[in-house]
Amino acid sequence: MNRQFLLNARPVGDIQYSDFELAETQTPTPGDGEVLIQVLYLAVEPAMRGWMENRADYVAPLELGDIMRGYGTGRIIESNNSDYPVGTHVSGSFGWQEFLVSDGNNVPLQRVADDIDLPAAMGLLGVTGLTAYFGLNDIGQPQAGDTILVSGAAGATGSVVVQLARIAGCRVIGMAGSQEKCDWVTDELGAQACINYREDDVKAEVKRLCPDGINIYYDNVGGEILDIALANIATNARVVICGGISRYNLTGEIPGPKNYFNLVFRRARMEGFIVGDYASRFGEAIGVISDHLRDGSIKHHETILEGFDKMPDALMGLFSGTNMGKQLVHVSD
Amino acid sequence: MNRQFLLNARPVGDIQYSDFELAETQTPTPGDGEVLIQVLYLAVEPAMRGWMENRADYVAPLELGDIMRGYGTGRIIESNNSDYPVGTHVSGSFGWQEFLVSDGNNVPLQRVADDIDLPAAMGLLGVTGLTAYFGLNDIGQPQAGDTILVSGAAGATGSVVVQLARIAGCRVIGMAGSQEKCDWVTDELGAQACINYREDDVKAEVKRLCPDGINIYYDNVGGEILDIALANIATNARVVICGGISRYNLTGEIPGPKNYFNLVFRRARMEGFIVGDYASRFGEAIGVISDHLRDGSIKHHETILEGFDKMPDALMGLFSGTNMGKQLVHVSD
Repeated sequence: MNRQFLLNARPVGDIQYSDFELAETQTPTPGDGEVLIQVLYLAVEPAMRGWMENRADYVAPLELGDIMRGYGTGRIIESNNSDYPVGTHVSGSFGWQEFLVSDGNNVPLQRVADDIDLPAAMGLLGVTGLTAYFGLNDIGQPQAGDTILVSGAAGATGSVVVQLARIAGCRVIGMAGSQEKCDWVTDELGAQACINYREDDVKAEVKRLCPDGINIYYDNVGGEILDIALANIATNARVVICGGISRYNLTGEIPGPKNYFNLVFRRARMEGFIVGDYASRFGEAIGVISDHLRDGSIKHHETILEGFDKMPDALMGLFSGTNMGKQLVHVSD
Repeated sequence: MNRQFLLNARPVGDIQYSDFELAETQTPTPGDGEVLIQVLYLAVEPAMRGWMENRADYVAPLELGDIMRGYGTGRIIESNNSDYPVGTHVSGSFGWQEFLVSDGNNVPLQRVADDIDLPAAMGLLGVTGLTAYFGLNDIGQPQAGDTILVSGAAGATGSVVVQLARIAGCRVIGMAGSQEKCDWVTDELGAQACINYREDDVKAEVKRLCPDGINIYYDNVGGEILDIALANIATNARVVICGGISRYNLTGEIPGPKNYFNLVFRRARMEGFIVGDYASRFGEAIGVISDHLRDGSIKHHETILEGFDKMPDALMGLFSGTNMGKQLVHVSD
C-alpha cells in the first residue's frame, strides 16, 4: 500500500493535524517508459503554509483532496526506462507519499550523485541551498567587508546564507531562537555573533553589533525583526526578502514594515525572489556549494524525524522552531 | 531690510504658522569676491517637513532659529566677483529670505541659462525635474510597453514622471486628488488615464486600468495607495519610493505597507533614492529635459503664490494638495 497525505482543509492560524488526511491507496504500477520510486526522505518548508492556502500564486493551486506538494529523494525500485535503472537515487517534487511513478517528465527527476549524502542533497544541495545561494548572491550582492544580518540563521536557508556570506568575506551577524541555535550559528557556521531573539533586547543588540549599519539584511522572518533591521540599514543596503515565517500563520491584517521609508533615507532596496526563476543556473550553484562542501568550508545539518506519519509534525515544527538546519522526514531506508 | 523665515518650532502633526518666525535683518553687504543676490522665486517641497523635524538625516540638521532651508532663483544685484556680473540669474539653496550674499562656494550658485523661464528652472529643470528623471530612469528602469502607475501625478515630481514615462513609451496611469488635476494629467501631460483618489474606488480602478499588473509604481504618497499598488504589481516590478506625503504630517506609529510580501511572489523590488546622490549626472538630465522642453514633448507648469510672506502657505498647501505642478512663491520681480 502507498500512504499519502492529502490536503484536507485550508489552515486558518496555526496548522492543525486535521488540515491533513492520511490516505492509503494501491502502490502504483509503472507503465511503459515509467519507473516506480520509493521515497526515502521528504522535506518540509515554511512556504508550504502558503501553498496549503493558495496564498502563493507563483505555484499551481493546491486543491482540497490533492496530495500535499513537497520535495523528496527516493530510489528507483522498478524500471521500464533505461535512463533510470533500478537503484538510481533521484530527487524531485514527489509530494507527501511513499511511492510514485514517473516517466522522468511528468514528475521531473534529478539524479543524485553517488558521493552525496541524501539528507545533504535535500537541504544544502536542494531547494534550500539554492535559495540561499541566489538570494544572497543575486539579490544581496555581498562585498567583502559587508555586514550582513541573517534572521532564521539556524534554519535551513539561513544556515547556508551564514556560511556563504562568511566565505564571501562578510561580517555575519545571525539571529536565532535559542542559545543552542546561536552557539551553533557562531561556533559551527562561523557567524561573528548571533542574537537570541527570544531572550535578547534585539533592538539594542542589532545597534551594538552593526554600529556602521547593515549592508545586507537577509530576511526569513518578517514582522518586528524586519522593522528593526530596516531602522539600521546602511547607505545602499540590500534587504533580501526570502521569507516571512512570523507572518504565515497569522490571520487578519498583518502589519507591514513601518520603517520602509528608511529605504529612501538610506538609498536602499528591498527585493523578493523565487528560487525557481533561477532554474537555468542551478548547475552553477550546485557546483559551487559542492566544492565548498568537499573542501570543508561549508557544513550541512539536518533535523530528521522518523516515519512518514511524522510529516505534519515536521511542518508544524518549522513554525515553533524545533529544527536546526533542514527539517526532513525519513520515510524509508 | 531683508526678511527671513526662521524655524520657530518643530512641527507636530500638520504644519502651523507658529512653526515659523518672520524676522527682519539688515540686507547684507557683499565683501571681497562676494555678490548680493535678490531672490526672485522660492520653491517648496514636501521633504521640508522632514527637515523641520530633522527626521531626514541625509541633510545637515536644521536647528531652531535657523533660516528655513530651500531652493531659489535670484538676480545678482551687486557684484565683487567677475564670475557673476550684475544681472546674472542664478539658482541655489538660498533659504527662505529675500536677499543673501555668496562667493559662489559657501552657497553654491548655478547659472540659469538666458532662454530658460525662471519658474521652469525651479521645477522642471530644478531639483524636482532631476528627481523625476533619476527616480524614473535609474530606479524605475522603464521599458517601452511597461505600465507605470504614478501617484501625486499632478504634483511637481509626478507631473514630470508622467511625461518622461510617456516619452519612454510606457502606458502611464496617473493618480491625483481632483477631477481638474486628473484632466490635466491626461489631456496635457499625456497619461492614458488618471484615478481621482478622493472620488474613485482606487482598488477597483487600479485593477481595471492595470489588468496585467503594474511594472513600475512611482510612489510620491505612501500609505494605503502604496499598499494597493503593491497588491497589483507585475512580475519583476520596480516600486520607486520617491516620497510619502501622506505620512509626513502623521504622528505616532505610522503603518507600513502590509502588502510588502508581494515583492516575493512578484520577484519585485522596492527602492528609495536621494536625488543629491546623482549630482555628477545633473548635466545629463538637464540636457535631456531641456531638449524635450524645446521640442515641445514636455510641458512645465507652476502654481505661484505672490509675495514672500506666503512661504508658509505655499508649504502647507502641498499637504492639502492646492498645487498643480511645482509650487513656487514669487518673491520679487
